[in-house]
Amino acid sequence: MARMKVTVAYDGTEFAGYQVQPSGRTVQGTIQAVLQKMHKGEPVGIFASGRTDAGVHAIGQVFHFDTHMEIPSEAWGKALNAMLPNDILIKDVEMVSDSFHSRFSATGKEYHYKILRSKQPDVFQRNHMFHFPYSLNVEDMKQAASLFLGTHDFTSFSSAKSEVEDKIRTIFAFDVEEEGNVLTLKVRGSGFLYNMVRILVGTLLEVGQGKLKPKEISAIIKGKDRALAGKTAPANGLYLFRVDYADKTE
Amino acid sequence: MARMKVTVAYDGTEFAGYQVQPSGRTVQGTIQAVLQKMHKGEPVGIFASGRTDAGVHAIGQVFHFDTHMEIPSEAWGKALNAMLPNDILIKDVEMVSDSFHSRFSATGKEYHYKILRSKQPDVFQRNHMFHFPYSLNVEDMKQAASLFLGTHDFTSFSSAKSEVEDKIRTIFAFDVEEEGNVLTLKVRGSGFLYNMVRILVGTLLEVGQGKLKPKEISAIIKGKDRALAGKTAPANGLYLFRVDYADKTE
Repeated sequence: MARMKVTVAYDGTEFAGYQVQPSGRTVQGTIQAVLQKMHKGEPVGIFASGRTDAGVHAIGQVFHFDTHMEIPSEAWGKALNAMLPNDILIKDVEMVSDSFHSRFSATGKEYHYKILRSKQPDVFQRNHMFHFPYSLNVEDMKQAASLFLGTHDFTSFSSAKSEVEDKIRTIFAFDVEEEGNVLTLKVRGSGFLYNMVRILVGTLLEVGQGKLKPKEISAIIKGKDRALAGKTAPANGLYLFRVDYADKTE
Repeated sequence: MARMKVTVAYDGTEFAGYQVQPSGRTVQGTIQAVLQKMHKGEPVGIFASGRTDAGVHAIGQVFHFDTHMEIPSEAWGKALNAMLPNDILIKDVEMVSDSFHSRFSATGKEYHYKILRSKQPDVFQRNHMFHFPYSLNVEDMKQAASLFLGTHDFTSFSSAKSEVEDKIRTIFAFDVEEEGNVLTLKVRGSGFLYNMVRILVGTLLEVGQGKLKPKEISAIIKGKDRALAGKTAPANGLYLFRVDYADKTE
């Protein structure tokens, strides 16, 4: 048996999320169906670094699977892409050791969130950016973003649905970049709680609108109360950009 | 009765084309349904500068309609956008004289065609650019494009399905622009035959690949035979960019 590590991009628009469900088209289900076909009907489970919600995109999601098929890494990518629909793209396949696990071996993740600040919406970007036509103080947003850096209890930025007990996470970097009328928020951390990036973004948008002051961020973190933070930003602007591992070959 | 001129953008991906059909979701049908609702059930016909095929996009399509409703131009746009799905966007509405006709008053049109030259496809652009991973000689394409300028019989660049008798059209400008790995072909002319832009693009792609030489363009035009020109490029890269009128207010 060989363990394969796969980097995949997908447009989340037409998926009911990453993870298989009793009904609805999912990224995991679509990929597993193709792998099962390649394995002559034998079911193959794939294990991702984490799930993404309906409408959330991935530029560099990672999953692994085990196989007894002996196919060179490059040929795996070509074979899978030939059978997958065109809203999923296998970007890279490599053989890894059995100790590699896409979720447990991950040392960090980077998410991007795209905000379109034009007055009118853009029909071509409607599924790929959050349209926000209101005024924003970007300098205040940058200042607030910097206050998330470091290790904190992120209870205030976690969905009430979250069942994880340990809500302490480390944010390594949180940048707010402007390019034309597109604002991209780039956050890299040790890991993220359910809805955490979208709540961080929603909170920064309240800062940008002047509803919250940057210096209030610390108190919101300390309050450990979801009600103190901003709204959950919509799924359509969110991209899982990269999953980091300590060593490529583990 | 007042005649309203409307500029509209749409993402053609989820439409069976612009023009109403016995079945299938169309741009015209969707807009007419909204106008009929606003007119208390009274049917309202809209007249466009021309139709676009399934999968073809518009950045600046123009249509007109007549109404007895007295609503300021800006309010028309807001009311329509509030009721339209988010793959159609009304960009501008203005009152025009009764002599204005979106099709017959048009003095020219500009189309853009976007080609993505990256090695791997882009899941987020799959409906909005034609992915072409092969090598292209862009200088040859520019030279060939310039040979289309002026007034010619475009029979060779017209779908065999075309029922128009007069196939003489004038090309005012035909530019090939590179930005990163995106090649945009911009063609502006007096008017275009059915599939003409897509056949022009397909022909330039054959020039770019070296299958045709730029100097062969003149002979292809003179041959008046569809079989001499290149393949019809896919719909997903094509955008109706603008419709020109001699005078805004006519």
